[in-house]
Amino acid sequence: MKIALLPGDGIGPEIVREAVKVLDAIAVKYNHKFEYTTALTGAAAIDAVGDPYPQETHKVCQESDAVLFGAIGDPRFDNDPKAKVRPEQGLLRMRKQLGLYANIRPLVMFDSLIDRSPLRAERVRGADCVFVRELTGGIYFGRPQGRTEDGNTAYDSCVYTREEVERILHLAFSLARTRRKLLTVVDKANVLATSRLWRQIAKELEPQYPDVQVDYMFVDNAAMQIIQRPTYFDVVVTENMFGDILTDEASVISGSLGLLPSASVGAQVALFEPIHGSYPQAAGKNIANPMATILSAAMLLEHKGFVEEGKSIRNAVEKAISAGVVTEDLGGNFKTSEVGEYVAKHI
Amino acid sequence: MKIALLPGDGIGPEIVREAVKVLDAIAVKYNHKFEYTTALTGAAAIDAVGDPYPQETHKVCQESDAVLFGAIGDPRFDNDPKAKVRPEQGLLRMRKQLGLYANIRPLVMFDSLIDRSPLRAERVRGADCVFVRELTGGIYFGRPQGRTEDGNTAYDSCVYTREEVERILHLAFSLARTRRKLLTVVDKANVLATSRLWRQIAKELEPQYPDVQVDYMFVDNAAMQIIQRPTYFDVVVTENMFGDILTDEASVISGSLGLLPSASVGAQVALFEPIHGSYPQAAGKNIANPMATILSAAMLLEHKGFVEEGKSIRNAVEKAISAGVVTEDLGGNFKTSEVGEYVAKHI
Ligand SMILES: CC(C)[C@H](C(=O)O)[C@@H](O)C(=O)O
Ligand SMILES: CC(C)[C@H](C(=O)O)[C@@H](O)C(=O)O
Repeated sequence: MKIALLPGDGIGPEIVREAVKVLDAIAVKYNHKFEYTTALTGAAAIDAVGDPYPQETHKVCQESDAVLFGAIGDPRFDNDPKAKVRPEQGLLRMRKQLGLYANIRPLVMFDSLIDRSPLRAERVRGADCVFVRELTGGIYFGRPQGRTEDGNTAYDSCVYTREEVERILHLAFSLARTRRKLLTVVDKANVLATSRLWRQIAKELEPQYPDVQVDYMFVDNAAMQIIQRPTYFDVVVTENMFGDILTDEASVISGSLGLLPSASVGAQVALFEPIHGSYPQAAGKNIANPMATILSAAMLLEHKGFVEEGKSIRNAVEKAISAGVVTEDLGGNFKTSEVGEYVAKHI
Repeated sequence: MKIALLPGDGIGPEIVREAVKVLDAIAVKYNHKFEYTTALTGAAAIDAVGDPYPQETHKVCQESDAVLFGAIGDPRFDNDPKAKVRPEQGLLRMRKQLGLYANIRPLVMFDSLIDRSPLRAERVRGADCVFVRELTGGIYFGRPQGRTEDGNTAYDSCVYTREEVERILHLAFSLARTRRKLLTVVDKANVLATSRLWRQIAKELEPQYPDVQVDYMFVDNAAMQIIQRPTYFDVVVTENMFGDILTDEASVISGSLGLLPSASVGAQVALFEPIHGSYPQAAGKNIANPMATILSAAMLLEHKGFVEEGKSIRNAVEKAISAGVVTEDLGGNFKTSEVGEYVAKHI
């Protein structure tokens, strides 16, 4: 199997390195051959070749069976409203060009870590849901976007087509079918025309999934319910911008952001990455938590049909957690590389 | 003083009624004269005259010194993507026509209610911040908005002008000055052109407020930090849509949504309303919590310079809370009207 490695910025390279150690252990144990190709993205790619998602990187992804991604983002670019090239543009172009229209984020509570949640244990215990975020449409990609000539008016456009909305809703309905069969469609249909299209199409599709119960929730209410009743949700589907906000909100209630993987899927190759960002303050210090990336590798294997192999990674990760072999964000005193090695050894 | 009363939908009429009882008690004690004019808004106005914000109502507001608002929204309209008139349109038109460009939401923890917070007490204790949400711009009002002729593509526009951004940022900077002097500007400048305008202007204004420390935060990160470190924030300023989501998220961490008032201010008359919605399931049952509306009346008085009168309401509310004279949402078994009467009696 050909795996493209896109370490990206900040802690990206360190955490991807540990995931590769774990994949190598899987290869040995199950007699697979993983062929890795590393390629540039983000600020690292801007620095090297002036483009946050070079054509060469795109080619590597297209020719691979799956992509393992680290993180993108660099504070050098954040506070410069006039920067011409930004790392994030690379991320967005990558999503668009690879057709990764659905970002899938499972939220699972690790019982042994429940006391790290900012929420009271009794609220959050048993929470088990999946967010499905539309990833290649909406205000992230809508045109026109920019400024008037005098620079004093700025505009963004949120656009959705029926096709874009249908495919992600079908994916979410299908996913709900394999789970508790409750689909929450989050929108702002009382204000936005795009949300009204989402709601209309969801209602049209409902009869095709009679076994799935559908629930419509305004985004402001959803932002409240995620905290108040996290155990209520099963599958949550929403548009790009709302998904960005809500998935990050949801990720912290587990108390272990450093453990959460995600998959981005679509037309062609699928991409797997940790939910957390590039965490520049920690870069190069060997203190970042590699677990979310390691679990992203597990998702990658499962996606490719290697279910037992994925399970083997999950078991090793759980062993590390119960043994307290974790980085400082989870209260441990192990280094990034030590955690990776421990997990690899327990495959 | 002339006060316009806009009870609106759902529990609106009941909770505004209790706030009026309290205002009447203030009038007696401090020898004021409040002249109330009640006017229609929302679904109630659609049912009566076919318009969620009738011209007549607008006139009443303009001719008043302040507006006390209940809530708007009715489930009859929510799931009908083709409804021609919606209650929310009235709300948006009211904000726009009255020039209410800033929504101000203080978030205060009541120590005696800390155990009702979904967050662990040690996380949330001492949280004391104010959200300033831009209320008459952005994607709520941007044009074009609608559908292509075939109905298969929908679009919304997010637009901000320098003037709109400057005035709200000035307001937020000034507010920060009267408090802990930390201003958090929330945006998505790594993706949106409008956010980059916000960030640029905030940076331009910084030198005018050298005593205020400014902090820039992406909206997805803000959604996390509000839960993880609620005590960090002092004044938070953001655009309309992000503000809608984040203020609702923040409101539940207090554990007492039913206690939170808000002010909408701008060019002309100011409007005061509870943060919670129209709660249609509770309408007419005399169980809704009137405290947020009563505290909105306190904000109204303070805004008009009646600081002692406002304080008197706050004290009476605190007395009710410590005496356990609260509605069921706060664990009590008192009725809406009983709570209102208790507070009025203790003015
Ligand atoms: C870096 C940024 C552009 C990106 C997004 O907003 O999509 C990130 O927040 C994410 O969620 O992957
Ligand atoms: C009812 C709705 C249009 C409104 C908004 O989104 O502004 C409400 O959620 C609010 O926050 O006042």
